[in-house]
Amino acid sequence: MADAYVHGYHRRENERLQDQAGTLVDLLHSDTAYASGSTVLEVGCGIGAQTVTLAQRSPAARFTSIDISASSLVEAKQRTDAARIANVDFRQADIFDLPFDAGSFDHVFVCFVLEHLSRPIEALAILKNMLRPGGTITVIEGDHGSAYFHPQSHAADAAIQALIELQRRAGGDALIGRRLHPLLIQAGFDAVRVSPRMVYVDSSRPDLVDGFTRRTFTAMVEGVRDPAISAGLISAEIFDGGIRDLYRTAEPDGVFCYTFFKGVAARP
Amino acid sequence: MADAYVHGYHRRENERLQDQAGTLVDLLHSDTAYASGSTVLEVGCGIGAQTVTLAQRSPAARFTSIDISASSLVEAKQRTDAARIANVDFRQADIFDLPFDAGSFDHVFVCFVLEHLSRPIEALAILKNMLRPGGTITVIEGDHGSAYFHPQSHAADAAIQALIELQRRAGGDALIGRRLHPLLIQAGFDAVRVSPRMVYVDSSRPDLVDGFTRRTFTAMVEGVRDPAISAGLISAEIFDGGIRDLYRTAEPDGVFCYTFFKGVAARP
Repeated sequence: MADAYVHGYHRRENERLQDQAGTLVDLLHSDTAYASGSTVLEVGCGIGAQTVTLAQRSPAARFTSIDISASSLVEAKQRTDAARIANVDFRQADIFDLPFDAGSFDHVFVCFVLEHLSRPIEALAILKNMLRPGGTITVIEGDHGSAYFHPQSHAADAAIQALIELQRRAGGDALIGRRLHPLLIQAGFDAVRVSPRMVYVDSSRPDLVDGFTRRTFTAMVEGVRDPAISAGLISAEIFDGGIRDLYRTAEPDGVFCYTFFKGVAARP
Repeated sequence: MADAYVHGYHRRENERLQDQAGTLVDLLHSDTAYASGSTVLEVGCGIGAQTVTLAQRSPAARFTSIDISASSLVEAKQRTDAARIANVDFRQADIFDLPFDAGSFDHVFVCFVLEHLSRPIEALAILKNMLRPGGTITVIEGDHGSAYFHPQSHAADAAIQALIELQRRAGGDALIGRRLHPLLIQAGFDAVRVSPRMVYVDSSRPDLVDGFTRRTFTAMVEGVRDPAISAGLISAEIFDGGIRDLYRTAEPDGVFCYTFFKGVAARP
């Protein structure tokens, strides 16, 4: 089960990540740009959903994008090739065993990765060590406890809670967004600055209704149906009712709220 | 008990409202300004916490600020007099029985009022009728279900839930912020636009740690201790633990999040 819920490893999950990057790109990435000639380590690039955006926004920076999964890297390479991106090198590597010298990078970028790690502070400290003094880290994470909506639904809350519990049992923390600030401080970073990126969706924003409420968040919860029920975390009836209620929030009188958190900090 | 939790009627609550207006003023009000000569009806002005800000930001507009409580109006008048504000007329009135002709105002402003009403759509429809065609309404409300924090605490969640339940029993809805968009649509407004105003507090923002986490939100929850326990909604032990845990989120490694919602719409 620990393997069943890891972003980027399954077809449907891959589609979800693409949708997510497509609709949220400005909200999450508009203030990230790297100077010409700077070196950037992207950690946990997965299938390259963020890599394309990053590399296109900083065309004269040099990216090294790593992931632990070779098959994800193949997809990521196909994606950047299709976008005619030439400033990214992909490499298979484990965040806890990085094949780089200390201080080799100007910047580190980590998006939707810490949520899956049981030792996020240790990971951040390792990444800090990859930076030159004064180099920056950018961390983006969601927080599934930040999801609320109208109409309210106990079944939807229970389905989301099952997803959070699955991620916890797999060693991760689906509520990590809210604690980016203390994590970065505890890992020894300086000049820590965290800002929330709230996705607010009502019927005046049909792109987000479809791209976020339906195809990102609800699809993500729906994706853990089988493991959540098999693990005895929730009944099929309540789970399915919860999914129906999440789709219900995408109707014309519904509202959906979710918040990502973005932290930027520097190596002392 | 219905009377025990109404903003602006008790000394401590009054202080809280002042603190709230002081630290959140930019977040909530920076994009509200009324043209010279325009007439604005402020509904449920209470002790004038928002009135001073409104009138100072639109010094050439003419405000009529109403409240159902005569004693609150006395305080509001003292407050605007102390700030040498001369463009506000105060009047005691009930939102459901307004002493004005239809179409008499260019704008209506409502802040932290709908949350206390059992018939918010009816109230909005009445206010719509006070506007000239094309006139605008501005509505600001909180949403106590938007509060989350680090470290997490079931006791704190339970204390907040008790406050929400008290407000529900008094006929209100402490989770109204998330549904401003459908409420304004259902009341017949046009051009409805709602934006979230998220208060994100970590130790890099000491003014908000003190002004919002401690003195606004936690003080508000603390204020319902006796009615919540008397009503059997929560034990004294859990409530007090919850309050301790809310104050704990104001420590250097804590984080606190809350979201207000601001809606603007026009009379067709």
